[in-house]
Amino acid sequence: MTWELRIGDLQDLARGAALLGSGGGGDPYIGRLMAEQAMRSAGPLVVWDLDEVPGDALVICTAMMGAPTVMVEKIPAGFEGAAALRAVERHLGRRAAATMPMECGGINSMMPLVAAARAGVPVVDADGMGRAFPELQMETFHVFGVPGTPMAIAGEHGDVALLQTPDNYRMEWLARGITVRMGGASLIAEYPMDGQTARRVSIPGTLSLGARLGGAIRRARQRHADPLAELAAVLRPTVYGEPRLIFEGKVEDVLRRTTGGFARGTAQVRAFSGSGLLTLQFQNEHLIARCDVEVLAVVPDLICVLDLETAEPITTEGLRYGQRVRVITIRAPEIMRSPEALEVFGPRAFGLDVSYPPAPAAGAAR
Amino acid sequence: MTWELRIGDLQDLARGAALLGSGGGGDPYIGRLMAEQAMRSAGPLVVWDLDEVPGDALVICTAMMGAPTVMVEKIPAGFEGAAALRAVERHLGRRAAATMPMECGGINSMMPLVAAARAGVPVVDADGMGRAFPELQMETFHVFGVPGTPMAIAGEHGDVALLQTPDNYRMEWLARGITVRMGGASLIAEYPMDGQTARRVSIPGTLSLGARLGGAIRRARQRHADPLAELAAVLRPTVYGEPRLIFEGKVEDVLRRTTGGFARGTAQVRAFSGSGLLTLQFQNEHLIARCDVEVLAVVPDLICVLDLETAEPITTEGLRYGQRVRVITIRAPEIMRSPEALEVFGPRAFGLDVSYPPAPAAGAAR
Repeated sequence: MTWELRIGDLQDLARGAALLGSGGGGDPYIGRLMAEQAMRSAGPLVVWDLDEVPGDALVICTAMMGAPTVMVEKIPAGFEGAAALRAVERHLGRRAAATMPMECGGINSMMPLVAAARAGVPVVDADGMGRAFPELQMETFHVFGVPGTPMAIAGEHGDVALLQTPDNYRMEWLARGITVRMGGASLIAEYPMDGQTARRVSIPGTLSLGARLGGAIRRARQRHADPLAELAAVLRPTVYGEPRLIFEGKVEDVLRRTTGGFARGTAQVRAFSGSGLLTLQFQNEHLIARCDVEVLAVVPDLICVLDLETAEPITTEGLRYGQRVRVITIRAPEIMRSPEALEVFGPRAFGLDVSYPPAPAAGAAR
Repeated sequence: MTWELRIGDLQDLARGAALLGSGGGGDPYIGRLMAEQAMRSAGPLVVWDLDEVPGDALVICTAMMGAPTVMVEKIPAGFEGAAALRAVERHLGRRAAATMPMECGGINSMMPLVAAARAGVPVVDADGMGRAFPELQMETFHVFGVPGTPMAIAGEHGDVALLQTPDNYRMEWLARGITVRMGGASLIAEYPMDGQTARRVSIPGTLSLGARLGGAIRRARQRHADPLAELAAVLRPTVYGEPRLIFEGKVEDVLRRTTGGFARGTAQVRAFSGSGLLTLQFQNEHLIARCDVEVLAVVPDLICVLDLETAEPITTEGLRYGQRVRVITIRAPEIMRSPEALEVFGPRAFGLDVSYPPAPAAGAAR
């Protein structure tokens, strides 16, 4: 079904996308303001469900690339996403019929909307991560063998780099280097593919899911209801299934460095009882949640930190000492749990010597 | 006049280009082997004098980019220069009529020959540096306002990045980042321009001059003649004028680091009498020669270190403890000494707090 996305929908989507971001993907706040601005000129956006994308239509994914810590301070000029899209179009000698998020988590739920409004094309309600991941090859598109290039990287000074490589890991490596030189954040267009391919390799409905999740948090707040129950009601019938509460406590320590173009670090959360200590390790996104030696959750499952009272998702760059939080985990969709997928974005792809799924978390919900 | 460059010419050209490299530009040895191999398939190369390039012909410069210390160990596959050229052609939607060196110093006297042989186009006998310089904006093309992009950067894994930026300094910054990620060396195609522009902004005859300088060193060696006198005879009637001997001695110390994509460091040469100490500072190329506080030579003038006996040019990455050397300086052509040019590649462009020309070297020729 074709539907319209309006400015009024953006606030829910931003909140839900921050949840799907698994702590990363960048704070959607600035992205939302940019999308609002672009849509005030362009009007409501046309959204295509994944199954109605014409088989021969050219779809090009758009996103922001960089460390979330940089993204919140180095704000795009606004034209870069469409400039990257146009550069790929020019190289292919074909116009894009639509753009699609590569990740519906965090700011990257919003940047395709900005590009779509600027370029005057519809957005596809789907993505290639079903969450946020820190690297460009960590997409279902790559798992299914879609070449990531030709891709384009655009900066706010009008610089554009068009990249071609036979290897999606080299694409990530080279694009990261360019992004670092562009100041740590850039806008990209990548994984050009036809509609038939998009239908086969994407996770459907993640844009509308983000909006529904954000709406659930908002409604729970209005009704003073339990936001976890509201989120569970939204997630239950989807490819994700119900979320699971794994910890509650107070943020006691945050170590964070921006290195190699990523925000890397750890955060520690002390249980309110004082006895349990949760350690979160992140590379832009949360990778693993450990309580002592026990693994409570690990990639590709989502690990989300929510404000204890408001259920507002807290991103890894927003973690601060003293925050009172709930930590929940959401199981990744089945398409992301195949052996081929786990090789690309399972624990070992991040250098974690942990199997997936981890041993059952006996001490959950402290 | 159109002339033919044959495999038999390459040895002289390599030696003369190492001299014009001012210590940098990369050791031409590997480049010569690559040019030989390419010309064994393609036959002799057609060389165009600068003044016979048709006004509307598209000329695209080709070169190797990276730290000379990396270039001698990471040998190109051979196809990269032509791949970079083709990427710029594809972007412009036009075929190149010829390629041109961006610098006739060091390995970059040879890489355009490889690209020309592979792409089947003539080479223009001219360049944009009249020597070697470490950065892409340090070209007469840039001094005269020619945009460096669209440029392409190609690696040995088949990766190609096409770069567009309104600012040649940003071109250098971004291309350096990509080159570092490609392993510290890459092949590039840049400064596409028409023949009319090329005639206005280039230094003519530097390819043939390199071959003549190499021939002079070879003949001096065969005749047991003074190579400096032979070099002077070749240089006297050109835009350079006679070389000047500034020091003789033994290499006593070399400090060299490969950092930020450049070979940076210093070398110290002790006079045979024991009392004088020459300090050379380099960034790929020699930048300045000092004896105590006195500046004997500084960029853009060429500073060349030659083996004392054979007059073989020694590159900055070839400097070793114990070498007995002569250090000479060659004045840069007038086109490179304008205030506009000195702003781009004079002492202050390298962070040296020295005026150009430096105060006369009273204690020269020790």
